[in-house]
Amino acid sequence: MAAITFITGGARSGKSSFAQQLAESLSERPVYLATARIWDEDFAQRVRRHQSDRDERWQTLEEEKELSKHALGNRVVLMDCVTLWLTNFFHDCDYDLEKALEQAKTEWQKFIDQEVTLIVVSNELGMGVHPENEIARKFADLQGWMNQFIARQANTVYLMVSGIPLKIKE
Amino acid sequence: MAAITFITGGARSGKSSFAQQLAESLSERPVYLATARIWDEDFAQRVRRHQSDRDERWQTLEEEKELSKHALGNRVVLMDCVTLWLTNFFHDCDYDLEKALEQAKTEWQKFIDQEVTLIVVSNELGMGVHPENEIARKFADLQGWMNQFIARQANTVYLMVSGIPLKIKE
Amino acid sequence: MAAITFITGGARSGKSSFAQQLAESLSERPVYLATARIWDEDFAQRVRRHQSDRDERWQTLEEEKELSKHALGNRVVLMDCVTLWLTNFFHDCDYDLEKALEQAKTEWQKFIDQEVTLIVVSNELGMGVHPENEIARKFADLQGWMNQFIARQANTVYLMVSGIPLKIKE
Repeated sequence: MAAITFITGGARSGKSSFAQQLAESLSERPVYLATARIWDEDFAQRVRRHQSDRDERWQTLEEEKELSKHALGNRVVLMDCVTLWLTNFFHDCDYDLEKALEQAKTEWQKFIDQEVTLIVVSNELGMGVHPENEIARKFADLQGWMNQFIARQANTVYLMVSGIPLKIKE
Repeated sequence: MAAITFITGGARSGKSSFAQQLAESLSERPVYLATARIWDEDFAQRVRRHQSDRDERWQTLEEEKELSKHALGNRVVLMDCVTLWLTNFFHDCDYDLEKALEQAKTEWQKFIDQEVTLIVVSNELGMGVHPENEIARKFADLQGWMNQFIARQANTVYLMVSGIPLKIKE
Repeated sequence: MAAITFITGGARSGKSSFAQQLAESLSERPVYLATARIWDEDFAQRVRRHQSDRDERWQTLEEEKELSKHALGNRVVLMDCVTLWLTNFFHDCDYDLEKALEQAKTEWQKFIDQEVTLIVVSNELGMGVHPENEIARKFADLQGWMNQFIARQANTVYLMVSGIPLKIKE
């Protein structure tokens, strides 16, 4: 069973930087598990900016959905991020919320059934005015339910606010 | 005067589940005070999903606006939620922010002038990008002001994040 | 070097009221540094409402961008707020995120290079669903990065939730 640190918070709240520092403090050879599907040039730019933040100590794995197919036993793994990973399930399930949630939970359970030190980055999406767009509203539900699911299993949970980690579970 | 626990947080952050567990730990026969006006099938589904989470111990009261007309002396009451209740005032006041806020505050004061143990669920709506839609922006103001009003009276306040209750006032 | 208290949170979460009380507790003659550019009648109303919250103890300075040109040595200064100040840079840079961020950081560094007690109000914009509008998304990035920049320098940071100050750095 994985030991999980869950890091959530708003966009541009410093989640990835904090997660990277944490991983580097725990391992000399951490694994970066990138879940982004490259949808457009904006995404490609963000991925490149994040890559340039990491030095040669990092091993990068790209995996859009099937996290569990990688054998990561006893490694320190930074999964960045749940939101992009869920987006891939949601898209491939034709925006069916229940189906995407079930597939993601099943895959997640398989993934964490190994001895890894897992640092998981996600996003808080529910504290703004609820979107008028139905797809966006469903995605916020998917994200919220998955966050609850992962946070319940996590040993430690941080909420990032303006770059400051606030420990909310330990 | 009511003893108030106020639970706020994002959409799908586990507010209602936490509130229900809290009510069940305090009473063998809690009251569920449902404030939803059934606007459409999406709302009807959410109401049914929440109902199926509650067992026969619960007594359900449906009340869109006039909370104070129910005599609830010495009961444990879960009011779910402030957002839907405010929506009804806002709609019936033709989206007049000041008028809706005044009516809601007046009704609220009457409601809490009784010896009940009150658990109140609300929403944080102000931590996203401010909406372009003026009605939505006004509603976020209404929600924010009412949250401040209730939280000031509350004995205990929780912020829910990814299913984790963070006590911010006690 | 300024001593900085940074206050962030959602819209209508009580940030300005809390900041004013804090300033009044620290000085008999605090300075209110207003950064709003008056774009429309809605803004004008908000400015007037905030002004009427302050009494004759307050000295008001209006400064849309060049905070550093005011000599404020040894005063208690409430800067309200970072969001409106950043909006002015973003607008005047034709919505160029990198350019606005660089100009704002440079100005900020000059501003805090004086012996003032600074109370800074900002906004959390990143915890809702990411906006579809590209300009809005860029502004949320700008705000998030500037919040991290200021919070890192701050001695004390509060997150306001429903009117309750939650100290997250001290």
